[in-house]
Parts: sequence; structure tokens; C-alpha cells
Amino acid sequence: MFGKHQYHPATLNSLVRSLREQLGDRLVTTRAVREQHAQGESWHTPYPPDAVAFPVSTEEVGRIVSLCHEAKVPVIPFGAGTSIEGQLGAVYGGIAVDMSRMNKILVVHEEDMDCRVQAGVTRKQLNEYLRDTGLFFPIDPGADASLGGMAATRASGTNAVRYGTMRENVLSLTVVLPNGRIIKTARRARKSAAGYDLTRLFVGSEGTLGVITEVAVRLYGMPEAMSAAIVNFPSVDAAVQTVITTIRMGIPVARIELLDDYSLYAINRYSNTHYPEKDTLFLEFHGTEQSVAEQANTVAEIASEEGGSGFHWVTKEEERNQMWEARHKTYYAALALKPGCKGWSTDVCVPISALAECIAETKKDLEGTFFKAPVIGHVGDGNFHVLWMMEPGNQAHIDEAVRLNGRLVERALALGGTCTGEHGIGVGKLPYLRAEHGDEAVNIMQLIKQVIDPLNIMNPGKTVAV
Amino acid sequence: MFGKHQYHPATLNSLVRSLREQLGDRLVTTRAVREQHAQGESWHTPYPPDAVAFPVSTEEVGRIVSLCHEAKVPVIPFGAGTSIEGQLGAVYGGIAVDMSRMNKILVVHEEDMDCRVQAGVTRKQLNEYLRDTGLFFPIDPGADASLGGMAATRASGTNAVRYGTMRENVLSLTVVLPNGRIIKTARRARKSAAGYDLTRLFVGSEGTLGVITEVAVRLYGMPEAMSAAIVNFPSVDAAVQTVITTIRMGIPVARIELLDDYSLYAINRYSNTHYPEKDTLFLEFHGTEQSVAEQANTVAEIASEEGGSGFHWVTKEEERNQMWEARHKTYYAALALKPGCKGWSTDVCVPISALAECIAETKKDLEGTFFKAPVIGHVGDGNFHVLWMMEPGNQAHIDEAVRLNGRLVERALALGGTCTGEHGIGVGKLPYLRAEHGDEAVNIMQLIKQVIDPLNIMNPGKTVAV
Repeated sequence: MFGKHQYHPATLNSLVRSLREQLGDRLVTTRAVREQHAQGESWHTPYPPDAVAFPVSTEEVGRIVSLCHEAKVPVIPFGAGTSIEGQLGAVYGGIAVDMSRMNKILVVHEEDMDCRVQAGVTRKQLNEYLRDTGLFFPIDPGADASLGGMAATRASGTNAVRYGTMRENVLSLTVVLPNGRIIKTARRARKSAAGYDLTRLFVGSEGTLGVITEVAVRLYGMPEAMSAAIVNFPSVDAAVQTVITTIRMGIPVARIELLDDYSLYAINRYSNTHYPEKDTLFLEFHGTEQSVAEQANTVAEIASEEGGSGFHWVTKEEERNQMWEARHKTYYAALALKPGCKGWSTDVCVPISALAECIAETKKDLEGTFFKAPVIGHVGDGNFHVLWMMEPGNQAHIDEAVRLNGRLVERALALGGTCTGEHGIGVGKLPYLRAEHGDEAVNIMQLIKQVIDPLNIMNPGKTVAV
Repeated sequence: MFGKHQYHPATLNSLVRSLREQLGDRLVTTRAVREQHAQGESWHTPYPPDAVAFPVSTEEVGRIVSLCHEAKVPVIPFGAGTSIEGQLGAVYGGIAVDMSRMNKILVVHEEDMDCRVQAGVTRKQLNEYLRDTGLFFPIDPGADASLGGMAATRASGTNAVRYGTMRENVLSLTVVLPNGRIIKTARRARKSAAGYDLTRLFVGSEGTLGVITEVAVRLYGMPEAMSAAIVNFPSVDAAVQTVITTIRMGIPVARIELLDDYSLYAINRYSNTHYPEKDTLFLEFHGTEQSVAEQANTVAEIASEEGGSGFHWVTKEEERNQMWEARHKTYYAALALKPGCKGWSTDVCVPISALAECIAETKKDLEGTFFKAPVIGHVGDGNFHVLWMMEPGNQAHIDEAVRLNGRLVERALALGGTCTGEHGIGVGKLPYLRAEHGDEAVNIMQLIKQVIDPLNIMNPGKTVAV
């Protein structure tokens, strides 16, 4: 049962003393700091850890984990605190390992278009650093997440349709195993057929197999030209048909985002913008001047055939930034409509042919409830979110969100989709892991967990703990 | 020790009887068929299996593996027989499971641009089937490999630089586990953050964790235009600098292949072509008419700055096919120069910044030996091959190839690369797995192997058996 610790208070005290010997004042047990580390960015019940460690090197993480291993006390890796399915709560107590001081960019190989960073480096920090190189790191989950956290959650976001997710873009990880030992999951080569794919095993393992301390990722040449566009549709279906045709024609859109009418209502009020409050696609194109124009023209034609209107070009960088800033703040915009509410951004991902149906059925559900909830999505991948907003302590709210969320997930699964495209399982999606993968596949996941972490100290209760 | 069986002849006899009850004449024990299944396409010592099963369904594979599991007799999955690092030899005896009769294309989802096929379907068969849909499956390792085999080996080939490898393109697998039970590793959604990435665990596991019986892969829209080009260089270094600049500028080349002077010497004699026998790039561009022309012009400029000459456009489909056919036959072309020899196409992959050095040092090695060996490569990924040609039974040949190969691998590892970019470990690269990954990482691989296949019946002696 969550909240129940498996270890004796004396064990904890002795562990904290040992950790303090190693870390000095980088081992913190104050209530405020523990509470800051009790949850991510959503409604899930907070579980403060017993202490928070702030390591500065892989070796130091190794010593922390070794001590926890000896004491059989849980370890909860903590990046930028932006996860949203309850990945961060210390549900069985333990030590949070906050990676924010491991924020060094270790090396950028410009010719190879890759870099290696400490896990606490955030994506904005990395792109700031890369500014003068002509390279950039494209994965953009909205929040300024850490690269370690993004790898652990198998994150993606708005431009995965062009550049892939963390699954495709992590080249190698340094990981502290549950026994405190250190591995590097791969070399720096772009591809390899040498043994089991440990990189991909740790990408998406949500801290349950080890602590990611360094991340090597692919970088991309900053495109010569970028351009964006906004186009309105009479229905979500028309917008999705436009997406299907665009992808099918091989047009390499960099972003293709659906925002429904209610999302734009929230955004206009929060970001002081004036977008038409209709079902809308926000698009971005990367390439040469010529290919960007060609891509945009082709998409404009497709959209127009699907009844799209108000095709609006966004060529100025400032206006483009404003548009994506507004898009990224949809979560906060929605919350601002319901002051005092806590948010829960759920996500599912379905084959794109099923996307229109999945969204339409979901919106039908929303019409039959007291909830109003924005629907936004990385529709080029078949991935979309519904933002539930709940009054804290209002059980009716929570129950209704959980019910609607359950219906959404079951619908996505029935359509061949997944219960989470990019937010992970954490504890929030635990009830659906077996429904998605079946008992035998989950059994294999659990066997892997058990053999790598036999004492179950790494972020216990999450991901495969079903 | 290879060749030593761990089970009693009576066990085998009883297993063969049980298998024959299930499969009838699709269980074959003739010497000729066993010898056909004793090795792949290279020099590695053949080890014929005790029998060859030809299942027609996943359930049948399940029954075969269950019976082998009960008898504790090895199972060796067999696709099209094109692997080249000794993945197929029954080194401890056992039953080869030949997937060639599982060659049904199960479903093509045109809107979602994906399909699901039985593991025995070959890439050419799939592309033939897709011809009228406007879609294609791009991964092209040269040989007409089966999709199951390609997934198992984490194969890639000439156009991975644009479309990725099997790692990026497999959406889901159906796998018969070593206990005979069946799992599906993922849903059909383009991306997912739901639990451990079992798909990627089985991709590249070379039959050591289970039998892949179905493969779902991404498809791509056939580009509106394709064009190719050939350009000669004064040195490998000049060619590689052209590659680096091309990739760095974000030009989405579909193929960028290096062929050294000796490769072209072999090709011209074998394929009756007249390519200048110089260090050369073969290139292909995919896109719209406009973007293809733009890409090709830009690369021509880059090449010219690096001293490239004789830039030759290949726009006719027929000429383009001839060129890639000639490229794919380099292995046979090389063998034809040394009648009676057996081949061994080794491969390493390094960061692209290290590619010129790695190739130059390798060619220096070749100058100091009696071997002449063509060097060809998927240089956009930093991946290249050297084709060793050995007289069967000539131990001096084998020793020298092994020595040169060892030096090549050590050089690649020292430069941050991998001992195999796409051919896999099999038995041929076993000596290098620890050097590449370190003891702790290999230990994790072996723990995973042990927990999924505790009886060690799945293709034992390969990949992680170090």
C-alpha cells in the first residue's frame, strides 16, 4: 500500500547520517525541500521523500545508490520535476536524488552532430548553449524538462513527427544500477547491432532500473528556414484528414498540432491572443527557403480541400515564438479558467486512421459531463491530450476525471493505441499496463525489473509494479 | 565448446517424434536440408541442426518451442539464411525453425502507413506487394532478407541514413518466448511511453530471447521523385568530408555510399559496368522534383569544393537500378575475383568525424598484407564494411583475416565506435562484446538472457554468450 515504508526508522537515520558524510549540506531533510520533491506537475497524491540528495557527479550518485542499496531504502531519481503521471512521489518513502546540480554540458561534437550532457541539463539550457554552433536539440515536450528525465519518461512533444522521440534520439546513457555500479549503455556510433539494446531498455524505464546520470543525444542542423502556419477547420475530423494526407504525401512537417475550439478559448484569455476559437492546426515547416515554401503551399492546398479556412502564414520569428509559447501554455491557460484547480494532462496515442474517431468519441463523453476539458494533440503521431482540471479535495471531480480518463484509455486501446504516448505510466496509468500489453508481456517486464533490481529499491511502485 | 550437445540422443529422438506428430512432413531431418541450415552467408564454421521445422503459424511455433523447452533442446530461428556473423549455426545442436513458410502479409494499413507481416516475408516480397499502394518499405540490407531476420539482427543498409534502421522502423513484434508462450511487444501506435520497450529488446536479440513470428513495420510514401548521382574523389578523406558537410547541412540524402577504388574494380568486372575505378560516392535523393534537384545541386557544390569530379547524374530509373544492383553485388563481385574463396563481410560503425581516419588506417593495414579487400560503406552513418575473402581450409588466410578484423574492430572501438553497425554479434563478434560495452553492461545483458531463457535453449552460444 502506498505510503507504507518497508524499513525501520533507525535504518533511515543511519542512512541519512552516511549520506550526509558523503554529501554534507547537499543532503537535505527539511520539510520544505522534501515537499518540493513529493510530486510532479499534476494532481497525483504527493509523497515526500525522507531526504533529498543533490549529487554533482556520476560517482557520487553511485555512492548514494550503494548506501541506499545496503540499507534497502528506495531511491527516486528527480529531474526537473515536470513529470505528470506520479513518477516522482516517494510512495514507499526513500531518498530523492535531485539531478539539478548535474547540469554540465560535457561535450558537443559538432561534426558528428551529437553531444553528451549530465542528466540535469534542461533542453532550453542545451539549446541556449548550442546557439552559436548552428545545431539544435529538437525534442520539445513543452516544459523545460531535464534530459535525464526526458530519457527516463521516453518523452517527445510537438516536433516528434519530424525528429522522433527520445527513443530515436538518445545515443547512449550512463546509468547507475541499483547496486551502485555504473554502466554506459552504448558507444557514440549512430547505429549498432552489438548485443541487447540497453539504451532503449533504460529509455522509458522511469527510474525503476537505475539512475540516468549522463545522456548522449543526436543534434540537428538548424534549418536554413522555418515557417509556421495556422489554419482553421469546420471539425476535428477535417483537421485530422488534412494531417493524414500531409503525412501520407511524405511532407516532412516539423510540427502539426491540433488545438480544439476550447483550447483556443483558454489560450486567448491567458496569452492575450486573438486566434479564431475553432478546431485548428498549428503547423511548422523546416528546410531551405524553397522547400519550406513548397511544403507550406502543399499543406495549404490539402487543408483547403478539407474545408480549412483562414490559412494564416507566420513567417516572422517573433510571431512564431509567440504562437508556440501560447501552445505550450495551454495547460496553464486551462487552469487559469478554473482558479484553484489542479490539472492532469492525460495522453493517449492511436493509429492516425483512428484519431478522428477517438477524439470525436472523447468529445461526446465531454459533452455529457460537468467537465469542460481542452483537447490538444501532436496529431501527426496520433497522440493527443485531454486536460482534466480538478478542485483539490473534491472527490466528485477526481472520480469523474478518473472515469472519463478510463473511458478514453479503453477507447484508445480498442483502436489499437497505447494508454500513453509520451507521459509514461508512473502510477497514474498503472491500471492500464496489463490491458495494453497482456499478462505475458508484463511478466517479462517484471522479470527484467526483478533481475536488475532484486531489492526493488529503484523508484518502487511505478511503471511495471502491477 | 561448440559442437558439443547437452542432451541425450534418446531425448532428441523422442522430440523429433513429437515434432513430426505436430508438423508431419514439415519436420525434416535429411542431411541435405540440415546442411542448408547450418550457416549463413559467410565463412563461419557450419553446424547443421538436428532437424528443421517449417511452421506456418505463430501457434505452431509456440508448440515447437514448448516441446523443445520440455526436452531442453536448442531452438535456432532461421529466416532467409543471409546473416553473416554465424548467427545460424546449431553450435550446440537443436532444431532450426525455418520461417520461410510464414510468408503472409497479414495487413497493410495504408492510412497509417504501416503493415504487419509474418516473419518469413522478405523485403522484396513486401515491396512487390506494396507496389500499387504508393507506399514502400525502405530498409535495404542488400540481401533479400526476411523481415523477422532483419528485426532479429537490427539490420539496416544503404538508406538508413534517411529512414533509420530496424530499430527505428519496427512498430511491434509477435514473439514466441522460450517457454512457448506468445507475446506482442507493442500496440500499433507510432509512439508509446507504456512500460519497458520490449520491441527494442527483441530487435537485435538475434534469436536468443525468443522466435519472432510477426513483424509490424512503418512504411513510407513512395517519393514523387528519385534521382541518383555518382561522384569520384581524389581520396577517401575527400569523399568523407563531402559526407560530413552534406549531413551537417541537413540535406536529407536517401543513400550516400562510399565505394573504394578496389570495390569498383571488382564491380566493373562482375557487373560489366564502366565506373571510374576511384574512391567514389553513390548518392540517391528522394523528394519532390524540386527538392531532389535542390539536394543534388547542393551536394554537387559540396563535392566540387572537396575536389570531387566527374559528377554524373542518374535520373533514369533503369540506370539507377543498375547502379544499386551493382553496389549490392559488391560482395559477389569481390568473391568472383578470387574463385573458390569464401567471404566475410565485417562491419564497424564510428562517429562520422572519425570515419576518414578509421578507413585510412584500415587501408594502411591492407597495404601491408597479402589480402586485397574492398572497402564499402554506408558512410552517412559512419558505417563501413571490409570484405575478407578466404580460401576454405587455408588457415593462413583465416588467421590473417581474423587478425586484420581484430585490428579494425579495436580501431573502431578506440574511436568511440561499435564492433558492428548492422551485421550483429552472432559468434563472429563475440570476442569484442565486452571490449565494447564493459563487464557490467554485458552482465546486465546476460541477466536478461537468463531470466527470459533460464534453460538457455534459444540460439545458445550467440550474442551475449561471452
